[in-house]
Amino acid sequence: MPFTLKEIAKHLDGSLKGDPHTIIYRFAPLEKAKEGDLSFVDNEKLLSLAENSKASALILKEGWETKKNAVYVQNPRLALAKILQLFSHRRKPLAGVHPTAILEEGVKLGKDVSIGAYTYISSNVHIGDGTIIYPLCYIGENSKIGKNVTIYAGVVIYDDVEIGDNCIIHSGTVIGADGFGYVKDGDKNVKIPHIGKVIIEEDVEIGANTTIDRATMGETRIGRGTKIDNLVQIAHNVEIGENSIIVAQVGISGSVKIGKNVTLAGQAGIADHLEIGDGATIAAQAGVIGNVPANSVYSGYPARPHSQQMRILALLQRLPELVKSVEELKEKINQLEKGGNEQ
Amino acid sequence: MPFTLKEIAKHLDGSLKGDPHTIIYRFAPLEKAKEGDLSFVDNEKLLSLAENSKASALILKEGWETKKNAVYVQNPRLALAKILQLFSHRRKPLAGVHPTAILEEGVKLGKDVSIGAYTYISSNVHIGDGTIIYPLCYIGENSKIGKNVTIYAGVVIYDDVEIGDNCIIHSGTVIGADGFGYVKDGDKNVKIPHIGKVIIEEDVEIGANTTIDRATMGETRIGRGTKIDNLVQIAHNVEIGENSIIVAQVGISGSVKIGKNVTLAGQAGIADHLEIGDGATIAAQAGVIGNVPANSVYSGYPARPHSQQMRILALLQRLPELVKSVEELKEKINQLEKGGNEQ
Amino acid sequence: MPFTLKEIAKHLDGSLKGDPHTIIYRFAPLEKAKEGDLSFVDNEKLLSLAENSKASALILKEGWETKKNAVYVQNPRLALAKILQLFSHRRKPLAGVHPTAILEEGVKLGKDVSIGAYTYISSNVHIGDGTIIYPLCYIGENSKIGKNVTIYAGVVIYDDVEIGDNCIIHSGTVIGADGFGYVKDGDKNVKIPHIGKVIIEEDVEIGANTTIDRATMGETRIGRGTKIDNLVQIAHNVEIGENSIIVAQVGISGSVKIGKNVTLAGQAGIADHLEIGDGATIAAQAGVIGNVPANSVYSGYPARPHSQQMRILALLQRLPELVKSVEELKEKINQLEKGGNEQ
Repeated sequence: MPFTLKEIAKHLDGSLKGDPHTIIYRFAPLEKAKEGDLSFVDNEKLLSLAENSKASALILKEGWETKKNAVYVQNPRLALAKILQLFSHRRKPLAGVHPTAILEEGVKLGKDVSIGAYTYISSNVHIGDGTIIYPLCYIGENSKIGKNVTIYAGVVIYDDVEIGDNCIIHSGTVIGADGFGYVKDGDKNVKIPHIGKVIIEEDVEIGANTTIDRATMGETRIGRGTKIDNLVQIAHNVEIGENSIIVAQVGISGSVKIGKNVTLAGQAGIADHLEIGDGATIAAQAGVIGNVPANSVYSGYPARPHSQQMRILALLQRLPELVKSVEELKEKINQLEKGGNEQ
Repeated sequence: MPFTLKEIAKHLDGSLKGDPHTIIYRFAPLEKAKEGDLSFVDNEKLLSLAENSKASALILKEGWETKKNAVYVQNPRLALAKILQLFSHRRKPLAGVHPTAILEEGVKLGKDVSIGAYTYISSNVHIGDGTIIYPLCYIGENSKIGKNVTIYAGVVIYDDVEIGDNCIIHSGTVIGADGFGYVKDGDKNVKIPHIGKVIIEEDVEIGANTTIDRATMGETRIGRGTKIDNLVQIAHNVEIGENSIIVAQVGISGSVKIGKNVTLAGQAGIADHLEIGDGATIAAQAGVIGNVPANSVYSGYPARPHSQQMRILALLQRLPELVKSVEELKEKINQLEKGGNEQ
Repeated sequence: MPFTLKEIAKHLDGSLKGDPHTIIYRFAPLEKAKEGDLSFVDNEKLLSLAENSKASALILKEGWETKKNAVYVQNPRLALAKILQLFSHRRKPLAGVHPTAILEEGVKLGKDVSIGAYTYISSNVHIGDGTIIYPLCYIGENSKIGKNVTIYAGVVIYDDVEIGDNCIIHSGTVIGADGFGYVKDGDKNVKIPHIGKVIIEEDVEIGANTTIDRATMGETRIGRGTKIDNLVQIAHNVEIGENSIIVAQVGISGSVKIGKNVTLAGQAGIADHLEIGDGATIAAQAGVIGNVPANSVYSGYPARPHSQQMRILALLQRLPELVKSVEELKEKINQLEKGGNEQ
């Protein structure tokens, strides 16, 4: 920072209109943009607002018109993601092991690894090149952390967990705690030890204070590119496919299989041993108690196809009216019956 | 401790009846009160129980009668809050920086600050007078913590977060993690970097293991005097007004605006970009999918005005009866039709 | 490891069939079993699969037949729990206090206690024989931890908390934070200090990132043998009886009394001051707003007896049909009325 507009056009793989030497100091939303700011239009209706803004340059979809300096792109929202990378000011911790970090026997570190203060790495943990572990984390025995992983402060990873390359794990998340499994012996709950693993594939991001339990036997697995929000519960032996989206406070019960490109919206719950097909969407707060077919949209409790659910909800709204209709019909029939008798 | 009844009356700004030199050793509920205890009556029906209790003195609403020593107040529940402050036995950590705490470059501490063991303060953090940070916390770069703030053990605050004066933050809470935002590039989820802030105004209390995400751009803001319970999810760019109450396990989606004096009861969920008006109440487990007007009460899924919801729920209870009525009507009409034909 | 089949039969208190000297290296599910593996049949239908598996020995219910080496037991699932104890490979940390652990004045340790790195034990804490506290934990003043307790990394226990013998507490869990209680003074929310305790009786297991708040006065109590999953919220002054099961993301409001042998399924919520009777089951996502009798099953929102709820849900499904019936009846009555007029 700052950047020239030419540099920005190159970063976005976009085409430049206007002065390539325009200096860009900040990125800002339209309504707050000042001179020296780059701003962003993702909706054609905002073009006149953009035109009247103080932004020194705009990011626009190809084909839209402006008199301002601009970078044209095919997908403005994707460009937003890329441009925010440029203006992100979170400094990466420097490579190196903080003198207070504790590494037990057999720990192997790749190149340019950063281990923060008071972080504890148990024996036989392997950590790949370029990975950053912030202060106050705990990594259990025999766990494997890939390359270019970021683990924020206060994360706990139990033993025998594998984290793939480029994963990001936010603070307070716990991976690999024992699954919730007991056998009744009379009234007593006898613990089923959990000797399985957790495997997080590459490019997964996990929010803050989320919990992912280890498998009873075998593994709990999160597929490549899947993104998980805060305070999500993922139970033992769950399998999630690639590129799925799991929103905050979702609960996934034991042994559930979730496909790829699935979306589970906030606070949804999935009962144990179910399958959610590829590309399915589960609405917020839905309670899923049966399998969900691929590419379907389910909502409500118990979760049903969304169109069916909407129809029932609409009819529910009309329930007072329906009850009234039935009362009127009763009355009319009474009249008819009396009428019949009177005839 | 102990206190004379006179001291207690003064602390409560109440009027004293009986012996001002009565010594009070403890505070206890009526049913457990012993000699030397002060107890509390918030309901006139409990007066005879109070009279027969072993409490040495009572806190009472003005106008209620007792033969015991008493302190009369206008609002007994408010007096309870104040009296429990007197009898709280949690010792404050002493001022000073524990020798194991790490303060990076540019950290500025006010007077009488307490920083606990193994707490890590990143560079350029400012901490106001009288603030207490317990052990094992992490504070990210450039964050500003006000005066007389209490941060319990194991809290994580990311970079660029502001915490106002007198805030209390309980253990395990994470403030400032990245919001949950991605753009699809084909099947792939591309991360939208979050370059915004979190601002917590003064007098806010936040429970344990709650998560408050930073804004994409701009800020996530919690208004003065708002109280947040445990395991609450507050997403990026949420704004909450003053003196609101957010109960445990509530989920608030991105860019929601919540007014002042709002109550969100336990496990309620608010979909993104909605507005909840001042003084509104959202019932427990409600799923809000539209704006909520000021001073209204909403419940259910999808959340509706509570009176409307109650009516529908009452009719739902009567659904079996309604179905039966319709069956009977069908039968009667069949009879009438036959009767008609037979005539 | 490895074990002879005779050793395994003895550990399971089962009866042995076949070669007692068979060497068992691992435990594996039927479909993955190889030579040297012990496997497990909990369903008679799987016997032929078991017979054809490569497992060197089986655990079977008494009375079932096999040609393989086998250990016969009365309750195969209970045997599974016991056998997984044998094959669990999580190494216990060695007894001893890590040199970086901090123990304040008046801390008393039993025999063979293990305190991990960077764990902070406040003054006057007592810890019983054989207890293991992993790294990066915080234990508040005057708390009492029993014998043979396991506390995983990153747990926070506030002051005046009691943890019974043999408890297991997973990472990120917070016990003893202040309950969520305020009194309105005009618009302002005045904090009610929480001067009560938390008491966790023996044999309780608590999952990751769960929160259990201290009582306002008196105590919050979790009964012996109760098991609590991840991300559960237990508010101030809650009492839970013995051997209950609280599944992930359940929320229990203040002063709720839960009996023994109760099951609260995932994401269920219980409103404040209610009682849930012994042996009751609350279904997933249920919202309980009234007392629940012993041994009953409740589901839905508002929670009702499950059979009643199922009937209403079934009728809801038929609501479109019901509306259609009423429309048809209206039409028929119109016809009848016209017919009557025409006659």
